[in-house]
Amino acid sequence: MVAPLKVGIAGLGTVGAEVVRGIEQQGRILTARCGRGVRVVAVTARSRTRKRGVDLDGIAWAKSPLAVATDPDVDCFVELIGGDGDPALSAIEAALAAGKSVVTANKALIARHGLRLAKLAEQHGGALNYEAAVGAAIPIVKTLREGLAGTEVKRVYGILNGTCNYILTRMEQEGLSFAECLKDAQRLGYAEANPTFDVDGHDTAQKLAILASLAFGTKVAQSAISVEGISTIAPEDLRAAADLGYRVKLLGVAARTRTGIEQRVHPTMVPKSSSIAQVMGVTNAVTIDGDGIAPITLVGPGAGGAATASAVLADIADVARGVRVKPFGRPAARLRAIRKAPMERHEGGYYIRLMARDLTGTAATIARRLAERGISIESIVQRHPNAGMENGRASGASSPVPVILITYATSEDAVRQALQAVRRDKVISGRPQVIRIEKN
Amino acid sequence: MVAPLKVGIAGLGTVGAEVVRGIEQQGRILTARCGRGVRVVAVTARSRTRKRGVDLDGIAWAKSPLAVATDPDVDCFVELIGGDGDPALSAIEAALAAGKSVVTANKALIARHGLRLAKLAEQHGGALNYEAAVGAAIPIVKTLREGLAGTEVKRVYGILNGTCNYILTRMEQEGLSFAECLKDAQRLGYAEANPTFDVDGHDTAQKLAILASLAFGTKVAQSAISVEGISTIAPEDLRAAADLGYRVKLLGVAARTRTGIEQRVHPTMVPKSSSIAQVMGVTNAVTIDGDGIAPITLVGPGAGGAATASAVLADIADVARGVRVKPFGRPAARLRAIRKAPMERHEGGYYIRLMARDLTGTAATIARRLAERGISIESIVQRHPNAGMENGRASGASSPVPVILITYATSEDAVRQALQAVRRDKVISGRPQVIRIEKN
Repeated sequence: MVAPLKVGIAGLGTVGAEVVRGIEQQGRILTARCGRGVRVVAVTARSRTRKRGVDLDGIAWAKSPLAVATDPDVDCFVELIGGDGDPALSAIEAALAAGKSVVTANKALIARHGLRLAKLAEQHGGALNYEAAVGAAIPIVKTLREGLAGTEVKRVYGILNGTCNYILTRMEQEGLSFAECLKDAQRLGYAEANPTFDVDGHDTAQKLAILASLAFGTKVAQSAISVEGISTIAPEDLRAAADLGYRVKLLGVAARTRTGIEQRVHPTMVPKSSSIAQVMGVTNAVTIDGDGIAPITLVGPGAGGAATASAVLADIADVARGVRVKPFGRPAARLRAIRKAPMERHEGGYYIRLMARDLTGTAATIARRLAERGISIESIVQRHPNAGMENGRASGASSPVPVILITYATSEDAVRQALQAVRRDKVISGRPQVIRIEKN
Repeated sequence: MVAPLKVGIAGLGTVGAEVVRGIEQQGRILTARCGRGVRVVAVTARSRTRKRGVDLDGIAWAKSPLAVATDPDVDCFVELIGGDGDPALSAIEAALAAGKSVVTANKALIARHGLRLAKLAEQHGGALNYEAAVGAAIPIVKTLREGLAGTEVKRVYGILNGTCNYILTRMEQEGLSFAECLKDAQRLGYAEANPTFDVDGHDTAQKLAILASLAFGTKVAQSAISVEGISTIAPEDLRAAADLGYRVKLLGVAARTRTGIEQRVHPTMVPKSSSIAQVMGVTNAVTIDGDGIAPITLVGPGAGGAATASAVLADIADVARGVRVKPFGRPAARLRAIRKAPMERHEGGYYIRLMARDLTGTAATIARRLAERGISIESIVQRHPNAGMENGRASGASSPVPVILITYATSEDAVRQALQAVRRDKVISGRPQVIRIEKN
């Protein structure tokens, strides 16, 4: 019988407490699955006295994360502190440098320092596992790192932020505004007091940076991602999307294109029939398009103590079994640098919503400006703003009328130039709303 | 640099040829991911001369699967012959006995001899990987075997047979009969000339037996599964399901219940809002309910040369990396025997479609018989059979009228007894249609 794996945990918030509980409750299963026991030997957290509902008797309390990481009794350092700098960073570095394995749920840290940490892990022979960093319990890191080892990935995209998907779902289902839904999300604890990190797309971007590296063998580089959030999405857009057979989701997309690897986060129209369109509320999902095979979609809880702990436990089990996979699937030294793909070069279909000042002649003007840039229109819908409303009344001749266009695949540059021309023509009021379409 | 992994392949059908092509085309990626090369050194197939579109130059042609398996030059034996007996079985046994690793896509063989082969693999130190046996490219074996190592699974269920899902999808979308859709499936190559293995649920049962073992630590036992196929499903059932907010899918379900592990394959009503309900056509999907966490659903291609080869390549990559996980996630010697759970004891909601001879008094009779067995009715729909049809005409007083019931959770025994009583009352004609409901 091999000696048990001795685990040290830094950070005993919801996830940390669930991990301690899981190791205790699932001890027999873990032992059977790993061929050896798993034992928590040291922990640390900011407060020693906080009630956590788990038994910490017989577990050493260390004075700092670094002390856990460097404890000679610890084989595997589990970092659940969070934050992309110290104390998490130096503790992980110390553990890896000592040849220990590291398990972390820290997406920010992996997105920022992943490459350096991977090199350290490879050099000293420890594992660096971070399944919980993206999509919590969804086994997306394992799937890209191991499950598709022999398959060339063409595109990986997903709903990686539950807050945004919750807001968009409620906006769509109840016709509410972004601001109203955000407030509810905050009340329910789905959104932070300062929600910008989530709703502006940065949380999605950190996760996408990790997935892109695993899928394409590129260096994790959040700076190479074009990011737009969901705050500009209006209920009208969701209604129009529904009418046209689409839903709007905040997607992180990394795709191999003719001009290189494109990485982008933005509100996206997806066909209602796609797996990703079915994902509602706080649920996360990732779709992988492999060369020559139909898409694979993984759906599940993207956050929460138990879901995150489930991934952490699986990572610990891999360490206990002696599994050592390169942190990014390939040697860190061979990951390729990636440059930000200019969005002007993006090619795809577009949804455009304009407010036409006066319909006489406006449609013709818009159509001409698009045609000048070689953009073909798949569908055009213009509707009286009050049409279908029970208390609708004829609006004055001066009220702008919404015009909604769906284009065939074209370049973003062409769309931007055409819309600039339309604005110069002074036939529309306000800024056009533009949403990219992602086909499955 | 570690020496390359030397692979021998028995069976060069669509999958085998794709595997040879994949190893050739993805050679560099595989090497980067595994830290060593992967090379095909020996192959065999029934026909040596058949055109396969792959380059077999420089690869030894062996005279039999056993010859490949026992070739001292082969480190990893890839079995793609199929069939639950010889020549696949003895070749795999020989390879494992020689300490080699085995990769197979053979669900029938794993379902039947998996336990014995797992013991052999554990005894001699080789891997036994079979990701492709269930859900082709969907990484469901890896997810259950490794990704949820520290999570207690409460239920695993899925659409595991593309033929059945294709038939049910077309029946639902086009209002066609089972027989018509089966014929189309055969014409399109989705169904075999003898389709019983698929449509009667046996293919699903073989896959479920494997998933149940991985999820619950039980011995793979196809004989412990209650199996019903889809041939009795009528377009009326799919219409009624849709009206009531459900879809009908052929599911394989393995669940931990109060009375033990229940394993069953049958047409099932699933809520339209569930991830599994969205899965249309030949696509497969598996949902895993872990203790305390929201369901995880994996969706993707369940068949096809490239999709199956993708899983085989991932399994080979794991062998090359030196990953050794117990074939069923736990030591084979410790897998528990499982008995067939009697369906009479199954508890859940039920859909019941009856043809009432004469409505006067019939509804009351049915309701009374159900009440006698303690069955509560969630909804009851009775509709003139021609209602809503453009050419509908009043039927004679003697035509039976369909009555559709949805029950709250009850036991199958109670439902059977109540329906027997209703039949004895002679208020219905024909056999009642009963479909189990699976809630998410």
